Amino acid sequence: MNIDIFGYFAAILTTAAFLPQLIKTLKTKKADDISFTTLLMFIIGVMFWIIYGYKISSTPILLSNLITLILNLLILISKIYFSKTFNEKESI
Amino acid sequence: MNIDIFGYFAAILTTAAFLPQLIKTLKTKKADDISFTTLLMFIIGVMFWIIYGYKISSTPILLSNLITLILNLLILISKIYFSKTFNEKESI
Repeated sequence: MNIDIFGYFAAILTTAAFLPQLIKTLKTKKADDISFTTLLMFIIGVMFWIIYGYKISSTPILLSNLITLILNLLILISKIYFSKTFNEKESI
Repeated sequence: MNIDIFGYFAAILTTAAFLPQLIKTLKTKKADDISFTTLLMFIIGVMFWIIYGYKISSTPILLSNLITLILNLLILISKIYFSKTFNEKESI
């Protein structure tokens, strides 16, 4: 069995996983329970994966992280847009 | 500049990112806005990354995904434990 198949399954799942979160957030118009710090750290991390994927010329790393970046940016924008506690200090 | 440094930064950020989410969930005792489907898909995907990392003997992939798995399992367990709508059908 080809080892790469595990990598492809992994990349597809950990990328597509953020689609139900985006749909849920858009449907419920609520994302207060999602950590802003987590989203920010994750997005910056994914940007580093994109740079790394580009530098080592890895299309799978580049492609999967570009989709992950777009989905997480949309989740972050939705969270900020729907935030009821927009003016409150969010510590974490 | 060493290309690997981008990969290490990426791995550390996308792994450590889930710690503030876990802390927030434990503090607020609420995780209703977090998609169950997202957590489940992400956890299964991370398990595939662990298998892939083991098969290609990549310690960074193995190690970072093991920590990501533990953090996300704890977030999932917390979500289920704190769920106020435990008996309600969660569609997404």
